[in-house]
Amino acid sequence: MIYFADPLAKLINELNKLPGIGPKTAQRLAFHLLNSPKEEVISLANALIEAKEKISYCSICSNLTDMDPCWICRDETRDQSIICVVEEARDVVALEKTREYKGLYHVLHGTISPVDGIGPEDLKIKELLDRLRSGKVKELVLATNLSIEGEATAMYLAKLVKPLGIKVTRIAYGLPVGGDLEYADEVTLGRALEGRREIEG
Amino acid sequence: MIYFADPLAKLINELNKLPGIGPKTAQRLAFHLLNSPKEEVISLANALIEAKEKISYCSICSNLTDMDPCWICRDETRDQSIICVVEEARDVVALEKTREYKGLYHVLHGTISPVDGIGPEDLKIKELLDRLRSGKVKELVLATNLSIEGEATAMYLAKLVKPLGIKVTRIAYGLPVGGDLEYADEVTLGRALEGRREIEG
Repeated sequence: MIYFADPLAKLINELNKLPGIGPKTAQRLAFHLLNSPKEEVISLANALIEAKEKISYCSICSNLTDMDPCWICRDETRDQSIICVVEEARDVVALEKTREYKGLYHVLHGTISPVDGIGPEDLKIKELLDRLRSGKVKELVLATNLSIEGEATAMYLAKLVKPLGIKVTRIAYGLPVGGDLEYADEVTLGRALEGRREIEG
Repeated sequence: MIYFADPLAKLINELNKLPGIGPKTAQRLAFHLLNSPKEEVISLANALIEAKEKISYCSICSNLTDMDPCWICRDETRDQSIICVVEEARDVVALEKTREYKGLYHVLHGTISPVDGIGPEDLKIKELLDRLRSGKVKELVLATNLSIEGEATAMYLAKLVKPLGIKVTRIAYGLPVGGDLEYADEVTLGRALEGRREIEG
């Protein structure tokens, strides 16, 4: 049974490959695009190709960038003595948005996950160690996710880096801001208690 | 504050224009695409351009097609005496998937909606009337959505077409298959009662 003209079926199929885009959404997007002005579709297609062509990994921190080194590694006003390790480039964006952190980053591009066959050698860990050997770095903040894989990766890195005499820290577990004790899961609540701090003043 | 390299920001912006794709999803999709093999991204970009270039409206039924007339209007085994009127091309797909309907279609590309400034002249109604004047059509099934706009459009078409001596029908309101009375809203339940049919046999 043919439901779609061939070029439309192809487009739906390509959209369907994107994460979180199921067949229904792919179909809805495809129909939307076919009803959009031609310039808009071409503009999307060009943005795809241009981003793919111009964006690559920063040779220092492995963040996504259109220039090498990236704008963060280039920025001499940033604190060169602290590196924050994250799983993905999107985590850099999330941290930058807090405007709290003024150090450098290192993007691992994944986590250690034996189930998925991802070992330390598949991540940008060698590159991280090379940076740490320069001697300029005083603190390494491990900001991998608070998931099983993220924790395992943080533990692995801590073991690896501590012998180099660098301070290794981990982002805090706790309740989200505005969070309600009643609705927090017990593990998070337990960690929030554990991580309690004295109120100053 | 720069969070993204320029080509990445552009891609996120383009993806964000798609319906149902918010800034967070656009960002997630963009990062996914940058981590995908180049061929996949090019394949998506090409599918977009190809679909937009090759797909147009069928000159008879206004369905989306890569040949004119479309594969449904060309199919002589289909019942030429019945036309089912739908709002969008995606509705044709939904109806075809039922495998219940063997007649022809007519895609309006919208509904009458005074609030949005969409009048009958903005829809493919003139084209529908031209088809009906051929005299071959015995029944017009109004399968616009059961929304306020869909109902208004159906009523408008019914008034227009009935004087031509063509039987005009409307798809049935009722509970969905597998639907639970307890959870049905009262309007739907009322319509389901109203539309009750005698059990044969």
